[in-house]
Amino acid sequence: MTIPQLHYFSIRGYGEYIRLLFIDNAIEFKEKNFVPFSAEWGQIKDSMIFGQMPCLKIDGQELVQTGTIMRHLARKHNLNGSNEQEATFLDMFFEGVRDVRQKYFSYINDLGETRDELVNSTIPASLEKLEALFNTHPGDYIIGDKPNYADYILFEELDVYNVLDKGILVKFPALKAFHERMWNRPNLKGYLEKRAADKIWINAVEKGMN
Amino acid sequence: MTIPQLHYFSIRGYGEYIRLLFIDNAIEFKEKNFVPFSAEWGQIKDSMIFGQMPCLKIDGQELVQTGTIMRHLARKHNLNGSNEQEATFLDMFFEGVRDVRQKYFSYINDLGETRDELVNSTIPASLEKLEALFNTHPGDYIIGDKPNYADYILFEELDVYNVLDKGILVKFPALKAFHERMWNRPNLKGYLEKRAADKIWINAVEKGMN
Repeated sequence: MTIPQLHYFSIRGYGEYIRLLFIDNAIEFKEKNFVPFSAEWGQIKDSMIFGQMPCLKIDGQELVQTGTIMRHLARKHNLNGSNEQEATFLDMFFEGVRDVRQKYFSYINDLGETRDELVNSTIPASLEKLEALFNTHPGDYIIGDKPNYADYILFEELDVYNVLDKGILVKFPALKAFHERMWNRPNLKGYLEKRAADKIWINAVEKGMN
Repeated sequence: MTIPQLHYFSIRGYGEYIRLLFIDNAIEFKEKNFVPFSAEWGQIKDSMIFGQMPCLKIDGQELVQTGTIMRHLARKHNLNGSNEQEATFLDMFFEGVRDVRQKYFSYINDLGETRDELVNSTIPASLEKLEALFNTHPGDYIIGDKPNYADYILFEELDVYNVLDKGILVKFPALKAFHERMWNRPNLKGYLEKRAADKIWINAVEKGMN
């Protein structure tokens, strides 16, 4: 089996979910990171299936689309729940979190959402629903006592919103405890501390870093 | 097995992919449709997991998120390809089409994309990539000789863009032939003709109907 290679930008962005999944599960992978808006990226952009990254080269395939890559890795590495019902629940959780990210993306890219709306209305309203959904299943993670693929996107998003507003998780105790629990996972902790210390941008622009 | 019940708006929208999948495969389902912006919808909105529809009540579960519902139905009804590689390809295709829909949504809801950009730039550029991806697999559909779940979203989207601009598919012969082929599927044809004759709105607002 060849080592999977992730092509992405030198930021956290959508590629970060994939990195976290690999790192937490001690799955070896390589990276080829491009500076956003760089000439180097411009040269390969058209070679990407939809002109976008992340792109994961794996087992002779070239996969794009974050959700597709995450779901494929989930099935391949037993991170997809233990039956159809759990797989569907994880899928629904992922999609719900992704909708919140779209609003965040709209703020970052000046597409309509304001910081005030996002921090004081959109994100708290969404976290309330995600907290309720999280609590429908027992255990430390979305489902049971180990992370599945959707836990990586949930964690990353909570972390991103926490950068925007340090108190944003306070009203959501289950999500707050989950965020801390993920931070302290042995394989993740060092990586997360380093990326914070290095101030790796969350987005292709500096916006969102405070 | 109880009959699945789709809760959605009385428009095509995101729920239409689910309807088409059921109808084409002669799977019995019930519908409960709400008028967009109605008091009736306002009353049940908060009971939805993310405050959104479509919602599919099926086998004692309440599923939301279009992608989640489509992928679940795909696995349940053998509309997900015949192996992991095909399932992943269908997933990627679906996600790529969905990205185009987001741009269309942005136009419909006055969030930035203009009609000129959409019709003369965004959609043709995306269709060029989708045509190329479609052509990587032989057969009349995305994969092989029968529709899978992603074919319903591809068809619906092509049909939506075709309403906006009758000539938009001309430069993409594989997609154009696919669109016509889907239109003429025995279980779909009558339904599609009726919805066109009834001028069922594509969106929650009339915009997009010409």
